[in-house]
Amino acid sequence: MSEVGIYEAMSTLRAVRRLRPDPVPDDVLHRVLEAATWAPTGANTQPWRVVVVKDADRKAQLGELYHRGWSRYSDNHRARLAELPENMQEREGRILAAGDYLADHYGESPVLAVFCFKPENMAITDIKLDRVSVVGGGSIYPAVENLLLACRAEGLGCTLTTLLCGYEPRVKEILGIPEDWGTACTIPIGYPVGGGHGPIKRKPVEKLSYLDHWANPYGG
Amino acid sequence: MSEVGIYEAMSTLRAVRRLRPDPVPDDVLHRVLEAATWAPTGANTQPWRVVVVKDADRKAQLGELYHRGWSRYSDNHRARLAELPENMQEREGRILAAGDYLADHYGESPVLAVFCFKPENMAITDIKLDRVSVVGGGSIYPAVENLLLACRAEGLGCTLTTLLCGYEPRVKEILGIPEDWGTACTIPIGYPVGGGHGPIKRKPVEKLSYLDHWANPYGG
Repeated sequence: MSEVGIYEAMSTLRAVRRLRPDPVPDDVLHRVLEAATWAPTGANTQPWRVVVVKDADRKAQLGELYHRGWSRYSDNHRARLAELPENMQEREGRILAAGDYLADHYGESPVLAVFCFKPENMAITDIKLDRVSVVGGGSIYPAVENLLLACRAEGLGCTLTTLLCGYEPRVKEILGIPEDWGTACTIPIGYPVGGGHGPIKRKPVEKLSYLDHWANPYGG
Repeated sequence: MSEVGIYEAMSTLRAVRRLRPDPVPDDVLHRVLEAATWAPTGANTQPWRVVVVKDADRKAQLGELYHRGWSRYSDNHRARLAELPENMQEREGRILAAGDYLADHYGESPVLAVFCFKPENMAITDIKLDRVSVVGGGSIYPAVENLLLACRAEGLGCTLTTLLCGYEPRVKEILGIPEDWGTACTIPIGYPVGGGHGPIKRKPVEKLSYLDHWANPYGG
């Protein structure tokens, strides 16, 4: 069996929010987890761990929390929908509907992969700056992206969610995560209800890049 | 030309710290940057930008800052080397030597890709928690990982560095980065001096994963 090409996988990785309840075979899940282990981390310390949640009761508890977080976020968002131009209303409405579906079925996802990290094992070079820190994420989210790309390669749907971080103390209780570890994101994983991955909509290089100086758009 | 497979690319992506001065062709660099644009971001806002630095003078200024940061870090590290067991001393010594090489030549890298982000455009769900925040990184480092994997596919060496964040105000001045943007990491990119990418050493799935609860190692 030949592998999915790297560019093909990256350019067709969508946020798949509608998952079938069918279980994910152990060997497939192992490949996806192994892909995460390959990612670079600061000084190769690999300061992340992942709790693979398959237990129905624990998933249901996480799903309830997610639903609460999503309702808060989406109520807000929905209230502003009417102010958007008509073509954007339709697009945003579709995204909200997919988000609603995910929130209603979050706890029934075949797998919830909860990524954790230990700040103490990280050299966080932006921790003293007068802005929110992100550098700890540099030793976590490359592994998460590897896992997402591997899901894409295996035909599994997935999406990167961070709403559960808002309920971290409760999530840590449910999964027995130690005091000195944090949670970075949760990835619902399963086979897609619909077409799954496919074409994506992104800004082009020229809108996201500069050459040598911020005044100088790349390729401009 | 057939693409590098996704698993092959991920499992052979090394931190390549010795780069040749040869320039990176524009079309190759464009593919690598495009790979970054494909990554998922929270609500698809793509709140990151990248400054592609090729200008010799600006690279030299960044290189000087990096060298300062590396010296501080590595002096510390070197001082503790003697306390390690002999086999680890050798390994750590090799890593330090590669780091020294990178620091001595940082400013001569053909390309320095400086990733920036705008906190205001992010929903940072862990910002109020009693620990360092990482979630902003969830909308940056997946793009960085895509760029690294694309470098691997193109035969380019690269490594994720965050030391320059410690000099962020000066870096922003050099590159004209606006007040309300932060810097997340810098990737030196170029063709490798030696073999470049290849086998990597990582902890296995069983050391990094749990099933359902932290008390229960995955596959254990």
